[in-house]
Amino acid sequence: MQTSAPPEKKTADILLLNGHVLTLDARYTVFDPGAIAVREGRIAAVGPASEIQDNYDAPERIDISGCVALPGLVNAHTHAAMTLFRGLADDLPLMDWLQGHIFPAEAKLTGDWVYWGTLLACAEMILSGTTAFCDMYLFEHRVADAARDAGMRALVGEVLYDFPSPCYGPPENGLKHTEDLIEKWRGDPLVRIAVEPHALYTCSPELLGKCGDISERHGVPMVVHLSENEAEVQQIIQKYGKRPVSHLASLGLLGPTLVADHCVALDESDMALLAANDVKIAHNPESNMKLASGIAPIPRLLELGLTVGLGTDGCASNNNLDMFGEMDTCAKLHKAATLDPTVVSAQTVLQMATCGGAKALGWDGRIGRLEPGMLADVIVVDFAKPHLTPVYNPVSHLVYAAGAADVRDTIVGGKVLMKNRILQTLDLEEIFAHVREFASKARQ
Amino acid sequence: MQTSAPPEKKTADILLLNGHVLTLDARYTVFDPGAIAVREGRIAAVGPASEIQDNYDAPERIDISGCVALPGLVNAHTHAAMTLFRGLADDLPLMDWLQGHIFPAEAKLTGDWVYWGTLLACAEMILSGTTAFCDMYLFEHRVADAARDAGMRALVGEVLYDFPSPCYGPPENGLKHTEDLIEKWRGDPLVRIAVEPHALYTCSPELLGKCGDISERHGVPMVVHLSENEAEVQQIIQKYGKRPVSHLASLGLLGPTLVADHCVALDESDMALLAANDVKIAHNPESNMKLASGIAPIPRLLELGLTVGLGTDGCASNNNLDMFGEMDTCAKLHKAATLDPTVVSAQTVLQMATCGGAKALGWDGRIGRLEPGMLADVIVVDFAKPHLTPVYNPVSHLVYAAGAADVRDTIVGGKVLMKNRILQTLDLEEIFAHVREFASKARQ
Repeated sequence: MQTSAPPEKKTADILLLNGHVLTLDARYTVFDPGAIAVREGRIAAVGPASEIQDNYDAPERIDISGCVALPGLVNAHTHAAMTLFRGLADDLPLMDWLQGHIFPAEAKLTGDWVYWGTLLACAEMILSGTTAFCDMYLFEHRVADAARDAGMRALVGEVLYDFPSPCYGPPENGLKHTEDLIEKWRGDPLVRIAVEPHALYTCSPELLGKCGDISERHGVPMVVHLSENEAEVQQIIQKYGKRPVSHLASLGLLGPTLVADHCVALDESDMALLAANDVKIAHNPESNMKLASGIAPIPRLLELGLTVGLGTDGCASNNNLDMFGEMDTCAKLHKAATLDPTVVSAQTVLQMATCGGAKALGWDGRIGRLEPGMLADVIVVDFAKPHLTPVYNPVSHLVYAAGAADVRDTIVGGKVLMKNRILQTLDLEEIFAHVREFASKARQ
Repeated sequence: MQTSAPPEKKTADILLLNGHVLTLDARYTVFDPGAIAVREGRIAAVGPASEIQDNYDAPERIDISGCVALPGLVNAHTHAAMTLFRGLADDLPLMDWLQGHIFPAEAKLTGDWVYWGTLLACAEMILSGTTAFCDMYLFEHRVADAARDAGMRALVGEVLYDFPSPCYGPPENGLKHTEDLIEKWRGDPLVRIAVEPHALYTCSPELLGKCGDISERHGVPMVVHLSENEAEVQQIIQKYGKRPVSHLASLGLLGPTLVADHCVALDESDMALLAANDVKIAHNPESNMKLASGIAPIPRLLELGLTVGLGTDGCASNNNLDMFGEMDTCAKLHKAATLDPTVVSAQTVLQMATCGGAKALGWDGRIGRLEPGMLADVIVVDFAKPHLTPVYNPVSHLVYAAGAADVRDTIVGGKVLMKNRILQTLDLEEIFAHVREFASKARQ
């Protein structure tokens, strides 16, 4: 009897073996027990555990039995370095909060503080299963540095407005500063740059128009706070005679590469315009609740076919970067708001937090799903916990029962950033020391 | 020169040393660095760390530096054994959910399953800093057993209604069953019994009246679901010509030992009646959101001086027993609902989750605060985490930033139930095995 040699196995860098694998692909394929082969930063294969084991070998084999593997979460809107102000002031009227507490504390910021605050944010995000984020803040070149040093994927952009910036000085420097960032980070495997005018009430039509030009010329997204609350809507109507969405439309700035943060105070005509122009939405339910901005009409936006990502906003208005908490709140809030328990299902929310965010931020086809060829941004959630037992439906648990601390491993671009809850790229004690030093100054 | 002998130290069982101690007493006293001395199940002393160390010795000394110690959380309304159905069905219309999924699964329940489901709930609660809970379910004598075995404080009561029960049989047996429970557990250090008619739409006025009699005769609380949504209000109006609160009033059942769960669909006259009678409220924001019941008018109830506790409800409608998530949602939800960022502050919510719940459930003066003479129900939350750094205001962090998994130690009545995240009274693997066995049956 002749025996044939076993077929030669393909080489991968990492194998994740024997878990419940939620691909979140277009058909919601699940492999259980499933496995993932990672090679050169990308997903080489995903499938039944036995098949992957038969076909792949790798120096690093990670047992994920009892766990759920899924695409890393995408935080579609944050101000990462605002970790520095976490809990500095809460439960205040908006203007007291901003002018009495946040602005004075922000006046003490430097590029270095932003770097350390962002590293703290990256630590928190990696620990809670977020692998990519979109950031808007001051000294954003240091946010880019921090994301790169942490190993996280990030879309970052310096905040632009009509007044001087502690980062780039007079307003006319802001656009040049942004274009320099775009040049510097072009082709980076982790960091992309966006052009980020702050909001319609802080940016002149001229500035917004120039931002749109940069977005188009360089093929980068434009990110803006839009219709965050009714007061903003009234202010823009007073100033320009139009609601914010119409104002942007009249400037020719609505389009598929525009990421609109918040979109709480919308009427039907606003939503029709956003939908007709395929504008991308970043929804931040917890921040909108805490600041009493209102409740964004997400069920209607989804019905209109808009792409919605989920974000935490900054830590001054949340006060954490926990996308698990955000998913839970999101799924529940819209049920209470519409008195309909069927809207914004767990599956819908999980999509928003993964492929929805990826698409909103221009990473579509690269992250947000576990499919061969996509970047290997993967998280492993440990389900061997009382609050995740028993398991009838893992997607339900991820949204309604899991917590940030259930994430066991976090991988970005094939690099393990957290293994068994231990951060691999960041020195927490060093970060804590810097941030506490800043806090002692901010408190004064 | 004469030296006097050092003063003799008093003996305690446990010393918690060198943390930020939030007493939550009437003056919100904080000791930092503070310490707590526990003796014979009670708080012997709480104060500055140096003072406690000078005056007390104990065989067990727990270093809580970098941590916040506070009263254990009180879950004012749950159905603990519904952990068995966690994630079984979500995002469905109420009647599909109940009749198509929950009722058929509940038909498979036995006292043993309730015991294991409750132990699972206790494990989750201890791990997330809950030290006391109020329960309503079937086979509640086994809930009492489970709470005692876990070492948790519990107010439990067999659910009563006009139809036969899988526990006690025909409805006329229910009252006797409850009185037997009251007799059996009288004087128990952990478990108290309540009389618990399910709701106004499942209990006749006669049954409700008899429940009131038992409550009065035995001096035990009466617990009932009340005005959970607008449909219930309409049903009661149709049946009795009165809104639910008025219906209870006309039966003479509103009073300070009545615990009313939910209280979502209230009008001003309902609230005035509840306030005039000092009825206790158990607020369950996450369940109310998930089931699309609505948003309880908590800011107004607090304004009227009502005592409000916070609860998670059961795991079929939440889907966890995490009081940290519940506090966060509670503080934010009412801001969104009222468009006022100043309502339901972090401090208010933390009070609801501790002394508010204690008072609502009849443990006032015994738990909910860290004061000498009170029962030693204490939790220690580890703040050395990225998402809890920096610290400007620990109360803000507990409500807006902390997660269930940040609880490091849990103590009930002076007994350490969790130490460094390790459960001391429960065998998780045994519980998991039983619960998974049930789940495989429930799924069929």
